[in-house]
Amino acid sequence: MKIVRFSHQGAASYGLLEGDAVAVLSRPPFDGIEKTGEVLPLDAVSLLAPVTPSKLVCVGLNYTLHAEESGVPVPEEPMLFMCAPSAIIADGEEIQLDSSTDRIDFEAEIGIVVGRKARNVAADDVADYIFGYTCANDVSNRVLQKKDGQFTRAKSFDTYKPVGPCIETDLDPDNVDIKLWQNGELRQSSNTNDMIFSTARIFEFVSGIMTLEPGDLIITGTPSGVGPMASGDEIVIEIEKIGRLRSVVA
Amino acid sequence: MKIVRFSHQGAASYGLLEGDAVAVLSRPPFDGIEKTGEVLPLDAVSLLAPVTPSKLVCVGLNYTLHAEESGVPVPEEPMLFMCAPSAIIADGEEIQLDSSTDRIDFEAEIGIVVGRKARNVAADDVADYIFGYTCANDVSNRVLQKKDGQFTRAKSFDTYKPVGPCIETDLDPDNVDIKLWQNGELRQSSNTNDMIFSTARIFEFVSGIMTLEPGDLIITGTPSGVGPMASGDEIVIEIEKIGRLRSVVA
Repeated sequence: MKIVRFSHQGAASYGLLEGDAVAVLSRPPFDGIEKTGEVLPLDAVSLLAPVTPSKLVCVGLNYTLHAEESGVPVPEEPMLFMCAPSAIIADGEEIQLDSSTDRIDFEAEIGIVVGRKARNVAADDVADYIFGYTCANDVSNRVLQKKDGQFTRAKSFDTYKPVGPCIETDLDPDNVDIKLWQNGELRQSSNTNDMIFSTARIFEFVSGIMTLEPGDLIITGTPSGVGPMASGDEIVIEIEKIGRLRSVVA
Repeated sequence: MKIVRFSHQGAASYGLLEGDAVAVLSRPPFDGIEKTGEVLPLDAVSLLAPVTPSKLVCVGLNYTLHAEESGVPVPEEPMLFMCAPSAIIADGEEIQLDSSTDRIDFEAEIGIVVGRKARNVAADDVADYIFGYTCANDVSNRVLQKKDGQFTRAKSFDTYKPVGPCIETDLDPDNVDIKLWQNGELRQSSNTNDMIFSTARIFEFVSGIMTLEPGDLIITGTPSGVGPMASGDEIVIEIEKIGRLRSVVA
């Protein structure tokens, strides 16, 4: 299933994507899918980011080649940080750069959407707690990231976390192609089977620290090929079987 | 005014502290104080953490003496990181250590409670956007903090952020005593006038990055005197004119 969140006539709802139509849901899908019966054409609604998480947890350096290009050793454990949920924007929205001179990079990532309250979940049991997967761009100001040491500021500016277009609930997250195009040119191309820590291991690790809530989002690191963006750029992230997340840099 | 959040007969509400009584509010206080008319004895309610923030933003190294004891240079700008809001507990609740062998420290801090949606607010204007101030303990696993580099994991375990007991709305936040006792012995004793970055400067800085929402919490760094906790310890933080935040280590 592909789940979207959208705005229609001023109200936000969840919906089930059915080809070019959206079957409206009566409530957030985490407690079960309940259709209202109303069906809208996809082009009659405005997509919103599919989650409004209470926590946006991020993993650094989770692909071997990206760790190499960053010049740092492969970590022994997932390296976590957090970003402001207020940075999240929807498919089609504009990224507003915080500086016209700093290097600000794109980073294609697969995101895990939490489905149920979760604490201390073993890797073997995570399927019961994960709702699905989405695409994310972990936009990063490299100057501030280096200056601060802590990654939060560099990655938390408003609009720095495009997420979407949907949540795919039926997916093997550890074997899908992940790609990013900048103005039509392929910049990142990998498969999640290159991740150092699998999505199940990451979920186990994060839930061993903090209580996760339905709709929380964990973004799981980016493959090699990151690079700087400039005003006017079109950035498209595609994860196999999920879809395409498109942003334009303002 | 002192604002509390509490549980009574299974429901959570905000209230206005009036001596040993709580005047129940009909809604969160950020849009204005509206009493229901009901007044409860303070000892008939269970205090909750006074905020349920969409973001818990933290400042590192904001007192000169603490920067010195940590062996790091005084930062040029506030050094930000974020912790999981799920780590927040109320006055009187237990801190559950994540390790029986790692050094896990207390850190007394004054917290800024956001009152209105805020973005790019100048330091001179922050009073219009700040609702009030509270006490916080930024509990920190020093082993993981050093190992990860990023501070999020070390400081985001469930129960690692005691916050309360109330929000004081009438306060000069940059000239109040801040103290912490461990089992009755004074361990931290300073005044917020020793902060490197004032609360107004911090608010300006954070709002220059991200959109702040009512109820968001910014904790502003700890003075010198941090130290390790052990099972059974009683930790009491007092900030002048706000009150006392008490925790026991399980």
